[in-house]
Amino acid sequence: MKLLTTAITTALFASASFAFADPLPSWSDTAARERIISFVDSVTDTASDDYVTPADRIAVFDNDGTLWGEQPVYFQLIYAIDAVKAKAAEDPAFLTTDALKAAAEGDIEALAEGGMDALLEVINATHSGLAVEDYQASVSEWLDTAKHPTTGLGYDEMTYQPMVELLSYLRDEDFKTYIVSGGGIHFMRVFAQRAYGIPTEQVIGTYTETSYSVVDGTPVITKEPGIAFVDDKEGKPINIDRVIGKRPIIAGGNSDGDFPMIEWTTAGEGARLGMILHHTDAEREVAYDCDSHIGRLCDGLEKGPDMGWLIIDMAKDWSAVYTAGR
Amino acid sequence: MKLLTTAITTALFASASFAFADPLPSWSDTAARERIISFVDSVTDTASDDYVTPADRIAVFDNDGTLWGEQPVYFQLIYAIDAVKAKAAEDPAFLTTDALKAAAEGDIEALAEGGMDALLEVINATHSGLAVEDYQASVSEWLDTAKHPTTGLGYDEMTYQPMVELLSYLRDEDFKTYIVSGGGIHFMRVFAQRAYGIPTEQVIGTYTETSYSVVDGTPVITKEPGIAFVDDKEGKPINIDRVIGKRPIIAGGNSDGDFPMIEWTTAGEGARLGMILHHTDAEREVAYDCDSHIGRLCDGLEKGPDMGWLIIDMAKDWSAVYTAGR
Ligand SMILES: [Ca+2]
Ligand SMILES: [Ca+2]
Repeated sequence: MKLLTTAITTALFASASFAFADPLPSWSDTAARERIISFVDSVTDTASDDYVTPADRIAVFDNDGTLWGEQPVYFQLIYAIDAVKAKAAEDPAFLTTDALKAAAEGDIEALAEGGMDALLEVINATHSGLAVEDYQASVSEWLDTAKHPTTGLGYDEMTYQPMVELLSYLRDEDFKTYIVSGGGIHFMRVFAQRAYGIPTEQVIGTYTETSYSVVDGTPVITKEPGIAFVDDKEGKPINIDRVIGKRPIIAGGNSDGDFPMIEWTTAGEGARLGMILHHTDAEREVAYDCDSHIGRLCDGLEKGPDMGWLIIDMAKDWSAVYTAGR
Repeated sequence: MKLLTTAITTALFASASFAFADPLPSWSDTAARERIISFVDSVTDTASDDYVTPADRIAVFDNDGTLWGEQPVYFQLIYAIDAVKAKAAEDPAFLTTDALKAAAEGDIEALAEGGMDALLEVINATHSGLAVEDYQASVSEWLDTAKHPTTGLGYDEMTYQPMVELLSYLRDEDFKTYIVSGGGIHFMRVFAQRAYGIPTEQVIGTYTETSYSVVDGTPVITKEPGIAFVDDKEGKPINIDRVIGKRPIIAGGNSDGDFPMIEWTTAGEGARLGMILHHTDAEREVAYDCDSHIGRLCDGLEKGPDMGWLIIDMAKDWSAVYTAGR
């Protein structure tokens, strides 16, 4: 009998220590962390007025600048530039336009001067004319070898550890976690499962045109020139409605491109949590907001607090930044 | 001790009887049923060469004519016609075109003569200019009251019981079940959870243009004129790639509009199951295939068997048809 009592006591303690394990160890002990946990508690407690059934626990997050870095330029653009360089090394005749030449030289400023047309040329040259699986094999190879210019880390080591923990915590509480990003779906799906625990079907984003054809008896889906849908600004709630068909109860982002998504989410009935990651940490990362060309954040900072959104101050609220080395 | 033994024996028997409960009671004891079960066994048995991890157990099904009826015309078109009638009853000036007049008179032939343009007029007049949630409230009200012209059943009672059982069986075996339909996503999502156990985020289909705007301080997603994507033929594998991002291992349909989806699915490596429901049952339903205007099936019957697809013979393979009354 004594043995049984000991066994039960041990089991209880083990389960209690499991229940009280910190789900967000890389978040500092500040109001931000407390607000997130108290929100999750309130929507998962069946006795709470704010209780939400698991089927409706939808959480959506922007990717660039929210779940991983985005400076000095979006990592997908760095992939595209590296792909242009590789193609040019094989065949210099590939560089048929000024935009492609600028890309091959890594001249981001010249590319930026060319505007959307120049960017689209580089995207088309590297993101079309090949099967989805061949494109993804190329991205995967790039992720295995390429290093970020200032941190020296692999790009998929530059995911934000506090956000990786948040995603995992939400899934443990029966949330479905989604990426809703201006980045390309085929690009993000290469690493979303490994880096974030997010399966391909929960990766929502921008996509190129694609075609279906049968080549020598083998069906193939091919990436074609042109962008079929831009998942940014108003495009985010529109795409969430198309793909998920439910209004999320949590939305997180870092730029004004996320404003409509967070606005739509938090306007829903019942408890909702909108959050914006403010890049305040010049020491561990990069400090930027309203004046930045990448991840410009003005409206969110100005109007977000009055709309009840949580503004996450990276420098104060995070005890760690990159997942690297963990 | 005897009590304990009895308890354990009872528990074992209960679990054994659970394991041997027929997962497909409305399927006749034919080769079709056997093939489905043996496929599912082979991909879920960890000792099998064909084992597939749960994350990759994706099953996709067409809706009209596969999961519910589609004769004499697609039920969504009947909704649209009923909606035109209701609007005309309120305001006869609503009938501004020949197509709308034909719809108000329920004159399907005149509508058909008007072709795609006439159809689009009717769709635009009933599927745009209102918030997604208002549209869905209208569909829900219609489903509660409208009756099918020949069976007298509510439309959502005309789901196929054998397919409802198949969907449930697959989910019990850790499949994710999806609808991939030429029908509208906002239309299908009104009943997919209730009728099929399929949540909104697993309903893939055709969709109209939509817009996001803030009206009097309230964010709203509005259905706009025009169809943004037609989820039929090549559109099905293209949309599966966009939304799910994985090739399914099971695909089921009933018309040549499903051919590319089943072709792409079954061309994947490893065990795959393609199936086509052949409407052979003039007595309990409607017998139709290659000559039908709705759900035309020629290529699938001609090439499907050589491609290893399972052709389900409704008359022979199903012991029940509609879910009605269950
Ligand atoms: Ca961002
Ligand atoms: Ca069909």
